[in-house]
Amino acid sequence: MKAKTAKQSLAITTKLVLPNDTNTLGNLFGGELLAWMDVISSISAHRHCKRVVVTAAVNNVSFQQPIKEASIVTLEAKVSRAFTSSMEIFVDVFVEDNVTGKKVKCNEAIYTFVAVDQNGGPIAVPKLIPETEEEKQRYEGALRRKQLSLILAGKMKPDDAMELKKLFMGG
Amino acid sequence: MKAKTAKQSLAITTKLVLPNDTNTLGNLFGGELLAWMDVISSISAHRHCKRVVVTAAVNNVSFQQPIKEASIVTLEAKVSRAFTSSMEIFVDVFVEDNVTGKKVKCNEAIYTFVAVDQNGGPIAVPKLIPETEEEKQRYEGALRRKQLSLILAGKMKPDDAMELKKLFMGG
Amino acid sequence: MKAKTAKQSLAITTKLVLPNDTNTLGNLFGGELLAWMDVISSISAHRHCKRVVVTAAVNNVSFQQPIKEASIVTLEAKVSRAFTSSMEIFVDVFVEDNVTGKKVKCNEAIYTFVAVDQNGGPIAVPKLIPETEEEKQRYEGALRRKQLSLILAGKMKPDDAMELKKLFMGG
Amino acid sequence: MKAKTAKQSLAITTKLVLPNDTNTLGNLFGGELLAWMDVISSISAHRHCKRVVVTAAVNNVSFQQPIKEASIVTLEAKVSRAFTSSMEIFVDVFVEDNVTGKKVKCNEAIYTFVAVDQNGGPIAVPKLIPETEEEKQRYEGALRRKQLSLILAGKMKPDDAMELKKLFMGG
Amino acid sequence: MKAKTAKQSLAITTKLVLPNDTNTLGNLFGGELLAWMDVISSISAHRHCKRVVVTAAVNNVSFQQPIKEASIVTLEAKVSRAFTSSMEIFVDVFVEDNVTGKKVKCNEAIYTFVAVDQNGGPIAVPKLIPETEEEKQRYEGALRRKQLSLILAGKMKPDDAMELKKLFMGG
Amino acid sequence: MKAKTAKQSLAITTKLVLPNDTNTLGNLFGGELLAWMDVISSISAHRHCKRVVVTAAVNNVSFQQPIKEASIVTLEAKVSRAFTSSMEIFVDVFVEDNVTGKKVKCNEAIYTFVAVDQNGGPIAVPKLIPETEEEKQRYEGALRRKQLSLILAGKMKPDDAMELKKLFMGG
Repeated sequence: MKAKTAKQSLAITTKLVLPNDTNTLGNLFGGELLAWMDVISSISAHRHCKRVVVTAAVNNVSFQQPIKEASIVTLEAKVSRAFTSSMEIFVDVFVEDNVTGKKVKCNEAIYTFVAVDQNGGPIAVPKLIPETEEEKQRYEGALRRKQLSLILAGKMKPDDAMELKKLFMGG
Repeated sequence: MKAKTAKQSLAITTKLVLPNDTNTLGNLFGGELLAWMDVISSISAHRHCKRVVVTAAVNNVSFQQPIKEASIVTLEAKVSRAFTSSMEIFVDVFVEDNVTGKKVKCNEAIYTFVAVDQNGGPIAVPKLIPETEEEKQRYEGALRRKQLSLILAGKMKPDDAMELKKLFMGG
Repeated sequence: MKAKTAKQSLAITTKLVLPNDTNTLGNLFGGELLAWMDVISSISAHRHCKRVVVTAAVNNVSFQQPIKEASIVTLEAKVSRAFTSSMEIFVDVFVEDNVTGKKVKCNEAIYTFVAVDQNGGPIAVPKLIPETEEEKQRYEGALRRKQLSLILAGKMKPDDAMELKKLFMGG
Repeated sequence: MKAKTAKQSLAITTKLVLPNDTNTLGNLFGGELLAWMDVISSISAHRHCKRVVVTAAVNNVSFQQPIKEASIVTLEAKVSRAFTSSMEIFVDVFVEDNVTGKKVKCNEAIYTFVAVDQNGGPIAVPKLIPETEEEKQRYEGALRRKQLSLILAGKMKPDDAMELKKLFMGG
Repeated sequence: MKAKTAKQSLAITTKLVLPNDTNTLGNLFGGELLAWMDVISSISAHRHCKRVVVTAAVNNVSFQQPIKEASIVTLEAKVSRAFTSSMEIFVDVFVEDNVTGKKVKCNEAIYTFVAVDQNGGPIAVPKLIPETEEEKQRYEGALRRKQLSLILAGKMKPDDAMELKKLFMGG
Repeated sequence: MKAKTAKQSLAITTKLVLPNDTNTLGNLFGGELLAWMDVISSISAHRHCKRVVVTAAVNNVSFQQPIKEASIVTLEAKVSRAFTSSMEIFVDVFVEDNVTGKKVKCNEAIYTFVAVDQNGGPIAVPKLIPETEEEKQRYEGALRRKQLSLILAGKMKPDDAMELKKLFMGG
């Protein structure tokens, strides 16, 4: 299976926040944004592996500021690292200033998808080649995040999480 | 402000997976479940603090198995720890066997909400009193997860994350 | 088939009234509430009989007061009586005071569901055992309501409706 | 206030059952139909009184047969009787045969709406003039149904329900 | 195949503009109205040919004035001309004055549908008989519009568009 | 007001066809696609003029082939010409092959938006500078389409439609 660049998996969607999408404060409803990010991540994961993919996990979504009704919101998703059959995807969320048109990043999320066959069993996916500085950083961090998930789920001992230990032990 | 027990914030919702809620495999669409969890978490957070609350973060949602159309799904949300103005909420998701009625846990998620005033500024919330064994465990873990978020966001040095260091250094 | 208690069929759902759910007065749209009650009743009916169930009738839903946007609404459904293949379900609707958290009942509805096989034919369901005072009252009333429906539909003569006649004739 | 004929309040809507509207059996979801009937009834009530109206009650909806996906469904709503500030509306639901185009009645429902002012207080509505045989029958029955609701709600003694007593006592 | 009158294909739907249907100015969202018109046109086309129909084109929809939230909107669709397997449908949109009840036309659209078999192949449809003056005008215009579409799509030479040439050359 | 290039108004959205979006044949529902195109066109128009915009017209949408459930669909919208206060927008719709990832164009639509002030009155918008060959062609065609609309609406005499006459008279 031929490795692919991160850029090949880029998926972009631009949306308008309609009344239908708001919470009781008149801002974009958090649950709606989570759903939007899930869809665009799944499209990015699909573009990387060309398989049916299912959401495996959501990590570290942070909502730094409310997004008002009538905002134009752009979501950009890109695979940050591919493991055997799972892919980590970064979604960056931008809001556009209504007067200047300048895009400001307002959210970031990390989703994990798995490629599956007809019975829901995992299928191998191509490796990912990071190219830009940011892609490389995210690629590096993916391993630490994976170890962290395994530890939190009780499936790995802290002692075996080499990447993470470095972080805390100056290693 | 009077501290409250975890139990006082319990919020439960039971739902039927309708065609409207499915992905292209005929299972509950991940984005929809994320939205459902967001709503029930916000209700739990509100019950704890009686304030307007907004989603601040989503951490460690894992989708362990697909949930089929026509399933009866129950979400149970409870505050696991309260900080100055933020609250960590655990959502447990159960699916009910259609014949025996037995509930099986199939998902777990951790959301963070913040209590806000009219201008979106943070408001102090009551402390949380964990009572059961599980509530205590989740209460303890919340601090580690908070430190971890701060480190990942570059707002805390690994050296200052006392709780986390113990995990890796046998401390 | 073993009889079951009313409590075994209890189904609870707690919801937040989002802008998406409102009518043009900014209150919960009546049609949306009817749909919510339909779903939770069907879950209660399913829990009683463990069969596929379909809505057969809706009776006596009264909307006593508007439910405002941003309200937390709890619906509790419980089978009140089981006949051969049909089940009468009571849904109680509560709204929560945003400051005190006190729940106030604001609506009540009675739905009837029928258990069906693959061809839509009726299937026998277990008998219901009422336990509390309220459960017993609702159980008693169910027969009167059934006779009333049959009379209104022209399928029973008023003279044969023993339970109802008592009401009017001091019997 | 000038009385109006029943016909003046007629409201018709024709809909296509889309996948979005179905239950897990592939038929029109009962809750969706209840919402459709609520909207068309409110339009009929509005046409009668030209006021803002809110749902007050739903009585005697019976679902006689499932409505399949892709069906063309027509709802016809007409005020059957007007009281001081409330109006009883009948909704007849028809399904169209896909080959012959023949419409078959498959459901019937009775809704009650109240005309309200800006504070939610009741406003008087015009009287209704029934013209056809069916309109007259429904007009007559409306009083019995109103008395019945009051008795069931504990707001009228069975002895005072003249119309209903006749039904049971041969009066 | 027996020809049918335009009137036989008339399809009417009356709707209430709910918050759910609005754009960020509080008016009916254009995309929602386009979807409503698509459904009612497809019902009209189906009534004419009794076949499965799919949208082939949308032409000349003009939005002359915003439709406010809480408006009562009526859509009337009628086949204007039938070709071999395609049908042109006119949709007229009316808004009702909330006080006088007077209906004012506020939009008009022309949709084209095609009757298809199980494989998506075209099926012949009955001819249309226009009766009223308006029906005849729209019937005549349909040919010009069809030629225009073919020219714009590069499938017909302007010289062969007899009907259209008359318009410009006084022929 | 400074003129802008067509490219500056480009708006892209990528979507997954969910069961929720399908018609009764299991393909993307035409009305849903019309709504998607309306939103992305409005974003493109907004990017050009930085004003509140409303849909004025939809012209020449053709649905050349059904789009199946689970397809990845990309919509690209770009202003093709700006008049005093209106803008014509082209939307190109592409479907992605699930195996090769190759995008195939499957639909095209032309929408017109108008920039409006708080009272709904028109506001002047910047001129458009077409750059590529396709942008120039679409820019040229826009005038003919505008004349055509005016003629069809009875607001211009065929004799005054210079651009259109050339088409038919070999001019």
